[in-house]
Amino acid sequence: MYYKHHIFFCLNQRDNGETCCAQFQAQQAFDRCKAQVKAQGLSGAGQVRVNKAGCLDRCAAGPVAVVYPEGVWYSYVDLQDIDEIVESHLKNGEVVERLLTPPHLGR
Amino acid sequence: MYYKHHIFFCLNQRDNGETCCAQFQAQQAFDRCKAQVKAQGLSGAGQVRVNKAGCLDRCAAGPVAVVYPEGVWYSYVDLQDIDEIVESHLKNGEVVERLLTPPHLGR
Repeated sequence: MYYKHHIFFCLNQRDNGETCCAQFQAQQAFDRCKAQVKAQGLSGAGQVRVNKAGCLDRCAAGPVAVVYPEGVWYSYVDLQDIDEIVESHLKNGEVVERLLTPPHLGR
Repeated sequence: MYYKHHIFFCLNQRDNGETCCAQFQAQQAFDRCKAQVKAQGLSGAGQVRVNKAGCLDRCAAGPVAVVYPEGVWYSYVDLQDIDEIVESHLKNGEVVERLLTPPHLGR
């Protein structure tokens, strides 16, 4: 596995007025995650990659991010949630149960 | 696993003149993959998602795409390669060995 944890943030922006992750500070969340991962020395091959992504098609649960290869989906609310995902999951490998995306929520 | 196969294409564009995937028809490859997956009825929850992504940080091997949860990386050349990835990997679960990204190639 090239990256131990590869997290993708939906940063999709829509022009048609439909709700999307970008309206819920997804960019700020991505920036925070990237900065925290870097600050903790976790970034790079064999470690963690924080990635921009287009629509992940689970808009009803947004804003969302997904961590692979484990396939864990998060619905976060604020930047403290991001810090917790970094510390618990990306650093220590422990899923943050309270932020898990409800399985039935899709587009 | 929300998606059986979740493929991310690096569509990164750089302003500073550095080489990046977008210079090698990454957008066309993404479009082709998305269209083929849809045409074959493979798209959606429980099946396949074709996703845009920012820089995947393996520029030296670009243009690249990564398939999760299996963590298989591809360096493709043309649209026929994309068709083969769709048919072989995304449809039938068989990795396209000849297109695998060399493990040592990173940024």
